[in-house]
Amino acid sequence: MIRLFTPDPLSAGVAVAPSPEQSRYLLSVMRLQTGAALALFNGRDGEWRAVIETIGKRGCILRVEAMLRPFGLPPDVELVVALVKRGPLETIVEKAVELGVRRIRLVLTRRTNAERVRLDRLQAIATEAAEQTGRVEVPEVSEPRKLEALLADWPADRRLMFCDEAGDDPQAEWGGDQGRARPALDALKPGDGPWAVLIGPEGGFAPEERAVLRGLPFVTPVTLGRRILRADTAAIAALTLWQAALGDWR
Amino acid sequence: MIRLFTPDPLSAGVAVAPSPEQSRYLLSVMRLQTGAALALFNGRDGEWRAVIETIGKRGCILRVEAMLRPFGLPPDVELVVALVKRGPLETIVEKAVELGVRRIRLVLTRRTNAERVRLDRLQAIATEAAEQTGRVEVPEVSEPRKLEALLADWPADRRLMFCDEAGDDPQAEWGGDQGRARPALDALKPGDGPWAVLIGPEGGFAPEERAVLRGLPFVTPVTLGRRILRADTAAIAALTLWQAALGDWR
Repeated sequence: MIRLFTPDPLSAGVAVAPSPEQSRYLLSVMRLQTGAALALFNGRDGEWRAVIETIGKRGCILRVEAMLRPFGLPPDVELVVALVKRGPLETIVEKAVELGVRRIRLVLTRRTNAERVRLDRLQAIATEAAEQTGRVEVPEVSEPRKLEALLADWPADRRLMFCDEAGDDPQAEWGGDQGRARPALDALKPGDGPWAVLIGPEGGFAPEERAVLRGLPFVTPVTLGRRILRADTAAIAALTLWQAALGDWR
Repeated sequence: MIRLFTPDPLSAGVAVAPSPEQSRYLLSVMRLQTGAALALFNGRDGEWRAVIETIGKRGCILRVEAMLRPFGLPPDVELVVALVKRGPLETIVEKAVELGVRRIRLVLTRRTNAERVRLDRLQAIATEAAEQTGRVEVPEVSEPRKLEALLADWPADRRLMFCDEAGDDPQAEWGGDQGRARPALDALKPGDGPWAVLIGPEGGFAPEERAVLRGLPFVTPVTLGRRILRADTAAIAALTLWQAALGDWR
């Protein structure tokens, strides 16, 4: 069944006008007729069955019938991702939504290419991914912030899984076991509280950034094997391991 | 350091001529000069340091100096993937190489779109991914085969992780616990022997195919959460969980 996001309120009997793009998709691409059923969600009221009531020159009107599924949030994990090139960044947003993140925060790091980011486009990709993956809400994609500022404001109860591609480099400037990166499944132990996953830019974090991150009490440094992963692969792998170890894939 | 694959033998002192594309990459894109160092591997002799010895009108000649890393194979996991559309299929090949598969086998299933596949292009993507991810060999991408034929020939000692997007559907035609799909981390228990990961087409496996797979003694059915995953997301997630539970990410 086709699923569409709408900003409108949803309850039994109300009428909803899809956006012009959604009308075109329903009528011209999918060639639905009057009476055809689809699912609607708005991020507040759950998922509802609706049918095409009328088809006019300027689109169609949907009539909401019955609730299919109540509203619910996925486990509390966010993705914090450095700005990477447009292609991989769009992949990361799409896949992070499929993998159930509650929010995507963009960050600027020392080695970030400060390419201009089109937040409206990323949010549209997140919405489409939510429609396809069966979510009843859409994660917000937040305006880019500097890593330092984000860490300065960080809520003390949210752990940060720091995917450190340099891993256990013996020449690293931190010593001892305190900030040692471990395989993700060893480092992610069930417990209370929300999490976030941090993915660096293609060039990796700068040594100063890594030292700061390793020293923060809410940071859990993890390794993702010894092969070099692109940023999009690392993001998908890290979120997969989080869901499998601590989230709703258990 | 730039890493390039070459089919030529590698040992101290030998000369190697890069392909025209590789020469263009080294000289025109990366603007390397005589004496610049890079790494070479050929899938047999490990990884070797080489330098640009001469630059001519028709490319350059590399001189091999010393071994950087001996030859070695990653853990024995293969990917068996249904033909999906070109974009996702290329992503899957690239990511599977980063995630350390030994081989990629393409399969045709009931719901596969029989789009023509360009094996040479997929093999080139695998080679480039091996260069970037730091491998000393390149996984082979095999010609598509029908799922039935592949399963009929299947080596009894290789387990198959069957990512069943329909999961524990209570209306499924198999009963009891025998073929029950479990969360991947519960189902993947350390033990001897090689594995493969099976990823279906976008439309999923047909009910008959699922019933056959669930009944085979070498098949381990697993679930990857309740959200619907695209084929490329599922492939990356499944290989990640395999590497973390049984492979070299431990």
